Amino acid sequence: MKLYNYWRSGTSYRVRIALALKEIEYEYIPINLRDAEQKNAAYLGLNPQGLVPSLELDNGTVITQSPAILDYLEEAFPNSPLLPSSPIDRAHVRAMAALIGCDVHPLNNLRILKYLKGELKQDQQGVDQWIARWIHEGFNALERLLESAHNRDGFCFGAAPGLAECYLLPQVYSAQRFNVDLSAYPLITEIEQKCMTLAAFQKAYPDKQMDAD
Amino acid sequence: MKLYNYWRSGTSYRVRIALALKEIEYEYIPINLRDAEQKNAAYLGLNPQGLVPSLELDNGTVITQSPAILDYLEEAFPNSPLLPSSPIDRAHVRAMAALIGCDVHPLNNLRILKYLKGELKQDQQGVDQWIARWIHEGFNALERLLESAHNRDGFCFGAAPGLAECYLLPQVYSAQRFNVDLSAYPLITEIEQKCMTLAAFQKAYPDKQMDAD
Repeated sequence: MKLYNYWRSGTSYRVRIALALKEIEYEYIPINLRDAEQKNAAYLGLNPQGLVPSLELDNGTVITQSPAILDYLEEAFPNSPLLPSSPIDRAHVRAMAALIGCDVHPLNNLRILKYLKGELKQDQQGVDQWIARWIHEGFNALERLLESAHNRDGFCFGAAPGLAECYLLPQVYSAQRFNVDLSAYPLITEIEQKCMTLAAFQKAYPDKQMDAD
Repeated sequence: MKLYNYWRSGTSYRVRIALALKEIEYEYIPINLRDAEQKNAAYLGLNPQGLVPSLELDNGTVITQSPAILDYLEEAFPNSPLLPSSPIDRAHVRAMAALIGCDVHPLNNLRILKYLKGELKQDQQGVDQWIARWIHEGFNALERLLESAHNRDGFCFGAAPGLAECYLLPQVYSAQRFNVDLSAYPLITEIEQKCMTLAAFQKAYPDKQMDAD
């Protein structure tokens, strides 16, 4: 399979983590967001939304949207599961993933930051405040969830990283990139540091990708 | 089970559609967002993020985040499935849901519009342009996906409404509320109108809820 993605895109990073955790081999196809390659006609043919990532299966089927790709990988490659087995436990892990995937990441996406600078004429300080606001709101709630989790054994849930970490690590990377102070989130920081000792997360890390600069 | 929700919240509406499609009985607990009831200590105890909806199961377990609630309902109540059976088909439906759930809805959420008006000092016109921008971007891509879908038989996928419609109908409702012109999206409009002939969607409709004004 082929993963069309960009080294610093958080949604691309999510999928790379899942592929690495499940030890799935894939071809890395870089789509340079800085050169707007995602809006080229060829890429729009694969993904009419013009966003990364897209996963192209060996039969030519293209799956778009990182949440859909992650669920597909979980269903088609059940080894190293990203989710626990009971519906309620799965819901708790998915809620942590959705908290980041729906309430934090979309607000700090490249196209949004461009709109803030362009149409809304915000300077870098205004953009940085916007970014920090939504990361803090989300991480505050996530830290509370982690504090009250009964099944946490070093990771977001249970004794191995899974779907929640696929979302969390890219969001922490983004927070670090934009100099958001994470000292109020000791559990998030602990989980991130523990993940970064694992080969799968090192392999998926943005700065290690072929298109990183 | 109890659904803590608000009549006009799009994420609440999503969950009400799924509950109605699966014919699951529940107690409707209104949380008035206009009075900021979602930030009351009692509600924060249920949902530390202070957002609706939350689903409280009969054993007291609380599930937050509408994507996690929808997946839970699908797993725990497999009747009237929201998703097709093959992993690839499921991925296509989930991609449509995520397009709305991650790339459209989060940008037009109440807390974001408040920030635009407050911190960023946007007038109503600026806010309306923001809302319309992200709905058009998302609906343009969704309309292309629907045009090229091979398995579409009156709905987003197949011959019955499912997960994609749980996300689509609330987003159309929101677009109508903010006077976004939907004439460029005949397939989206057709699907919305077809859904609104069905009892489940009528039951879940915002204006029909006990807390609607």
